[in-house]
Amino acid sequence: MELIQSTQNPLYKLAGKLATHRRDRLKQGLMLLDGTHLVAAALDAGLALQHVLVTQAAINNPECVALVKRADARVHLLDEPLFATLSELPSLTGMLAIAAMPAPATPQRGGLVLALDGVQDPGNVGSILRTALAAGVGQVWLSPGCADVWSPKVLRAGMGAQFVLALHERANLPALLAAFDGPVAATLLEGSVDLYDADLRGNLALVLGAEGQGVSPDIAALATLRLRIPMAPGIESLNVGAAAAICLYERVRQSR
Amino acid sequence: MELIQSTQNPLYKLAGKLATHRRDRLKQGLMLLDGTHLVAAALDAGLALQHVLVTQAAINNPECVALVKRADARVHLLDEPLFATLSELPSLTGMLAIAAMPAPATPQRGGLVLALDGVQDPGNVGSILRTALAAGVGQVWLSPGCADVWSPKVLRAGMGAQFVLALHERANLPALLAAFDGPVAATLLEGSVDLYDADLRGNLALVLGAEGQGVSPDIAALATLRLRIPMAPGIESLNVGAAAAICLYERVRQSR
Repeated sequence: MELIQSTQNPLYKLAGKLATHRRDRLKQGLMLLDGTHLVAAALDAGLALQHVLVTQAAINNPECVALVKRADARVHLLDEPLFATLSELPSLTGMLAIAAMPAPATPQRGGLVLALDGVQDPGNVGSILRTALAAGVGQVWLSPGCADVWSPKVLRAGMGAQFVLALHERANLPALLAAFDGPVAATLLEGSVDLYDADLRGNLALVLGAEGQGVSPDIAALATLRLRIPMAPGIESLNVGAAAAICLYERVRQSR
Repeated sequence: MELIQSTQNPLYKLAGKLATHRRDRLKQGLMLLDGTHLVAAALDAGLALQHVLVTQAAINNPECVALVKRADARVHLLDEPLFATLSELPSLTGMLAIAAMPAPATPQRGGLVLALDGVQDPGNVGSILRTALAAGVGQVWLSPGCADVWSPKVLRAGMGAQFVLALHERANLPALLAAFDGPVAATLLEGSVDLYDADLRGNLALVLGAEGQGVSPDIAALATLRLRIPMAPGIESLNVGAAAAICLYERVRQSR
């Protein structure tokens, strides 16, 4: 097995680009998976790995051994200092993998769709994707201003929900929502109904807006169901991940 | 007005300590507020500011001027490069303040209590505090392993919910929960009831566990109401902030 020790190694350079730049991920159609948990989630979801990178400290770790066996990919040893520049996990159990990004979903016109409008925080986007998967969301549409779901931070926060969900990034939300065959719901203050008085069953597109600004005006204008999450006096807004969880799970409850 | 330009200035050194070390915050009983939003939230909550620090670029910003007027505190000019080491916000609108931390709450035995057991991520803790305030939580108890609610990251994520909520940090959760006059609910898999089949009204202590490990065994043993959030196949867990939002808002819904 090859031991990669040089910063000039092409595979090391590729992994570094995939870790840091969306542009390179899009150009190559590849992503970097950091950690055994994500690698296992990718394999569980049926994704093919192209390369697996492990340190000498990790190569005999039972979890790594099992994953290397499952992955039908080229395995490379990566020097500890180089590994540390690519991974946020301990090298003793650490593992990196390069895999093709799943193809984007073709937008659907019905079912349950979650649309994210300019949600920039990677932790929020990842948490929302996990919630969406748990709540049975059919598709997630993300506007161009959202965090990249294939970045290492969003992959970590999403814990692999990305590999199972149907995702449509850089979505033209106004056009897609206008064509949606069902209510377009958004959390808005003006003219809104209490969340628990709204009927969330059936076809539904739920839009959540950016931290701070909320849903953008052109999308707010398309909302046919304006929702208000009840809040105690003295607080104006919730974290967008909390708002997503509350709305999606009220739909879960109503749909039982 | 004094212009602070030296890294040896005692107030600058104090602010730096408050920004970085829980030990110093506890020793001094003080915290550092970063940004006009947090300063306004602190004033809204009736907290007294001891010092306000602004840059020369910000001193004539109308938002800063208004806050300086409201705050009955000593105002200092802080050199831009020094300001940048203390703040994560742009210096043009930036403002820092030093204030006394509110006194910890005396633990209550009834009402609605949220207990956090080893929740370490600052963004999660801050988001959960916002949700708790919105959902009408009476007190939040945090185990010693939780992120410090008075750290700059948790203050930013909590958006000042800390100033209004009754908080009890470094809590002896097993002792407090054992003495609680009502059900102790926790999200656990074994022997659990579906969240939507549980009665969450009346006195309730809701425990949420650490990312990854969940609720610790000694606390799980105290749970008299074991809750299961229903999830679609193929996903094992939610982000702790999402789980908190779902459980607390199901209580909100049931209590209407």
